Amino acid sequence: MRRPPPSSWNDGLNKADNENMTSQTRSDGSLRHLLTIEGLTRAQIEALLDRAAKFVKPIGQAPVTANSLGGVTVANLFTEPSTRTRVSFELAAKRLGADVVNLEVQLSSRVKGESMLDTIYTLEACHVDVFVIRDAEAGVPGLVASHVKPHASVLSAGAGSVSHPTQGLLDALTILQAKKKFDGLSVAIVGDVKHSRVARSAWHTLSTLGVREIRVVAPKALMPDNNEFTGCERFASLDSGIAGVDVIMMLRIQKERMATAQMPDADRYFAKYGLSSERLAKAKPDAIVMHPQPMNRGIEIASDVADGPQSVIRDQVRNGVAVRMAVLEAVIEGRK
Amino acid sequence: MRRPPPSSWNDGLNKADNENMTSQTRSDGSLRHLLTIEGLTRAQIEALLDRAAKFVKPIGQAPVTANSLGGVTVANLFTEPSTRTRVSFELAAKRLGADVVNLEVQLSSRVKGESMLDTIYTLEACHVDVFVIRDAEAGVPGLVASHVKPHASVLSAGAGSVSHPTQGLLDALTILQAKKKFDGLSVAIVGDVKHSRVARSAWHTLSTLGVREIRVVAPKALMPDNNEFTGCERFASLDSGIAGVDVIMMLRIQKERMATAQMPDADRYFAKYGLSSERLAKAKPDAIVMHPQPMNRGIEIASDVADGPQSVIRDQVRNGVAVRMAVLEAVIEGRK
Amino acid sequence: MRRPPPSSWNDGLNKADNENMTSQTRSDGSLRHLLTIEGLTRAQIEALLDRAAKFVKPIGQAPVTANSLGGVTVANLFTEPSTRTRVSFELAAKRLGADVVNLEVQLSSRVKGESMLDTIYTLEACHVDVFVIRDAEAGVPGLVASHVKPHASVLSAGAGSVSHPTQGLLDALTILQAKKKFDGLSVAIVGDVKHSRVARSAWHTLSTLGVREIRVVAPKALMPDNNEFTGCERFASLDSGIAGVDVIMMLRIQKERMATAQMPDADRYFAKYGLSSERLAKAKPDAIVMHPQPMNRGIEIASDVADGPQSVIRDQVRNGVAVRMAVLEAVIEGRK
Repeated sequence: MRRPPPSSWNDGLNKADNENMTSQTRSDGSLRHLLTIEGLTRAQIEALLDRAAKFVKPIGQAPVTANSLGGVTVANLFTEPSTRTRVSFELAAKRLGADVVNLEVQLSSRVKGESMLDTIYTLEACHVDVFVIRDAEAGVPGLVASHVKPHASVLSAGAGSVSHPTQGLLDALTILQAKKKFDGLSVAIVGDVKHSRVARSAWHTLSTLGVREIRVVAPKALMPDNNEFTGCERFASLDSGIAGVDVIMMLRIQKERMATAQMPDADRYFAKYGLSSERLAKAKPDAIVMHPQPMNRGIEIASDVADGPQSVIRDQVRNGVAVRMAVLEAVIEGRK
Repeated sequence: MRRPPPSSWNDGLNKADNENMTSQTRSDGSLRHLLTIEGLTRAQIEALLDRAAKFVKPIGQAPVTANSLGGVTVANLFTEPSTRTRVSFELAAKRLGADVVNLEVQLSSRVKGESMLDTIYTLEACHVDVFVIRDAEAGVPGLVASHVKPHASVLSAGAGSVSHPTQGLLDALTILQAKKKFDGLSVAIVGDVKHSRVARSAWHTLSTLGVREIRVVAPKALMPDNNEFTGCERFASLDSGIAGVDVIMMLRIQKERMATAQMPDADRYFAKYGLSSERLAKAKPDAIVMHPQPMNRGIEIASDVADGPQSVIRDQVRNGVAVRMAVLEAVIEGRK
Repeated sequence: MRRPPPSSWNDGLNKADNENMTSQTRSDGSLRHLLTIEGLTRAQIEALLDRAAKFVKPIGQAPVTANSLGGVTVANLFTEPSTRTRVSFELAAKRLGADVVNLEVQLSSRVKGESMLDTIYTLEACHVDVFVIRDAEAGVPGLVASHVKPHASVLSAGAGSVSHPTQGLLDALTILQAKKKFDGLSVAIVGDVKHSRVARSAWHTLSTLGVREIRVVAPKALMPDNNEFTGCERFASLDSGIAGVDVIMMLRIQKERMATAQMPDADRYFAKYGLSSERLAKAKPDAIVMHPQPMNRGIEIASDVADGPQSVIRDQVRNGVAVRMAVLEAVIEGRK
């Protein structure tokens, strides 16, 4: 008779908020995993941003290097190997002196949950210390975190539509660099908010950091349910949604989602929800424009806006490496 | 007129025992290649195990690192890039200070023998010192070994159904750690022995090390020919085959092979040849359970056995990195 | 409305000589990019060969290592990941102390020019210093070079049929090692010259270095247009083409190109344009034989010639790593 999987992991997967079940923090308060921004305190987030700020150098200057991960092994487990996020994590780890191995693996708990965990146990037995996991399925990083040994850490590099915690941190760092504060800012998140892990992680990060006004701007079909983004004002119109804001966070739209929103082509989507320079003028004069990339230029954002003086999109990328260095250093430092 | 390939490599490939044609040992007795366990002396194997033991650290402790491969270049040539064995070799080489390049290549001598060798010559001219080769075809690592220059070494990372020498060594090391000896042990190898390079390398290693009783347990269709595994007692029944043994080595069964063995589904295979905790009780009380991975949990082994107190499966993985470090260090050290 | 791409890059792509539009040299005369050999001075090429010569070690000796790229990040952007040229660049960068990331990306400007550039900007923001680009489309490396920030460099690792500059350099270095001079040499380039970036880069390099007699030997259908390879004598017959030459550079023939040249199979191609040992005897007794690899043994070159005493094919590979080290070091050193 075929053995059923042990109930522990199966239970975990049946809960959407699986990540929350595993504590991300050690008993001494130090960060052990980073699966989601939810549940982190303002002080914890600020400490990570402070640490990341030390790793930021202007583009064109030599990056900060250190040896705080000397002797540490980081495994990047990505379902697709050639993503920018994989490169960002790989360089972050290498610049801190870690050994890095890249694996292209399909970590799907539904298909073969236990053999997925066996892959993890195998890497753990090869002295892998940090598992960086990107997976289409939201529960996987949390599931892995609940099964690794005490010395190992799990970092989510983007999980389903639910969370992308290092993206939330790099977005916050980028805003802080431009605005020097979070208090009193008004931020608009625009586009396919319903399916966006970027939007969710930004909302959790920024609201914890004290941003009081977060607006959600989306066509009806791409608007999240009412039990999410609580406290955010919702706008169907881009013009009203960005009026007077300090920060505009544009999201990537998938082509197949435009149809759902009854905007059958890119031109019509751009006409209603694309950020042109004319529209950008409705925001504050010193408003900044963000995008998690990859951009659909001419669909959700005009090229002259993406490359214009208010755009901080490349700062976000640069800050991404710094934030990942900070998270890696924090989880390893806390082991002692 | 198309030139025929030189007779040398063509001859080699027509012999199943091709690896044996290339001496693995230098004239001074040091190890140069590792293609198969066959032909190694007990002293050579013991020296590798001694060396490997120094590289073993408990999971959770920092791995041993050294610089004995500083300036050395290791190329991993795998037909599939994301295997655990590739990661094990990659980390072993990096932790000894080597530069590592990974290539996903189809090294097939039959299709294009000479262009395969040209790939090797190219890497050799790039100052690659060690070729780690995993290939479905048994003759390939030996063929490469017979063509590289005197300073270069070839390590098989698994060749067809014939040999997987580092697996044989790590299995021996795992048994030695648990049992402190080889003399007087009784070992059962269970499952698809006929097609298993793991079984063949275990048999060669353990018999050379003085294990006197090695049992082979398999359904008739998966039992090796009589000219192999000589001296091993053969069992069709799992219960009798593991009765009173010290070590149970389970093998992975391929789904398509179950049909051959007239066990049309996983449940029936498990019923006859799967290792459950009830069955495990027939072995000695302190018997250890091994598996080369990846496991088909619920098919050849029950999950509670794989994760239970008698399982040393994760020790095998940890020892795998140590054994690969030892082999890499030995072949490089011997060049001087 | 969908934004059109900015005119700058679109213009560039409509010109075959796109690389020439971007200056490869800084205002102080130092090399910044290497996109094509065209436009480099004899002194610049000689300086690169001098630098490369210091990185050459006999096969079997330990390669030269240095730290002149310490803190530098090199990104290999290849459409196919497992090429020999990628390994050559990767080892060159690692042996100089660089951090290396490999990406398998389709850099096609026609399909999605701007998102291609966004990939580059993203890597630039991750502090990538050197972009090594191999792409089927000739304009891409030059396009990237015209968009990166002043501190960044772009090296072409082979662009369409137009140029393969490091191949031109390694070929020149190989000839120099064998012949100690360029003056007075006679060089025959044989095969599919029409479609060969190797032939074009060799022609540019060798003619700049003072080789006065460069012959082009090809069937009519594979002979380049008359406005190219100016000053080169053209031969339809291999026997006359190589008569009395010092250097024979064989090119790889694609199977589909043989049909174009009305040679329907490999045997007939070999009979007319394959280099056999009998034919090689028509060249000078000390003539050297070169091939950029991968070889079609028995089609454009006989195996005994490829492996014979006049072949310098493996020297070319060894010199390839040295040339790439030299180019990497030169572009980084010149930044100061």
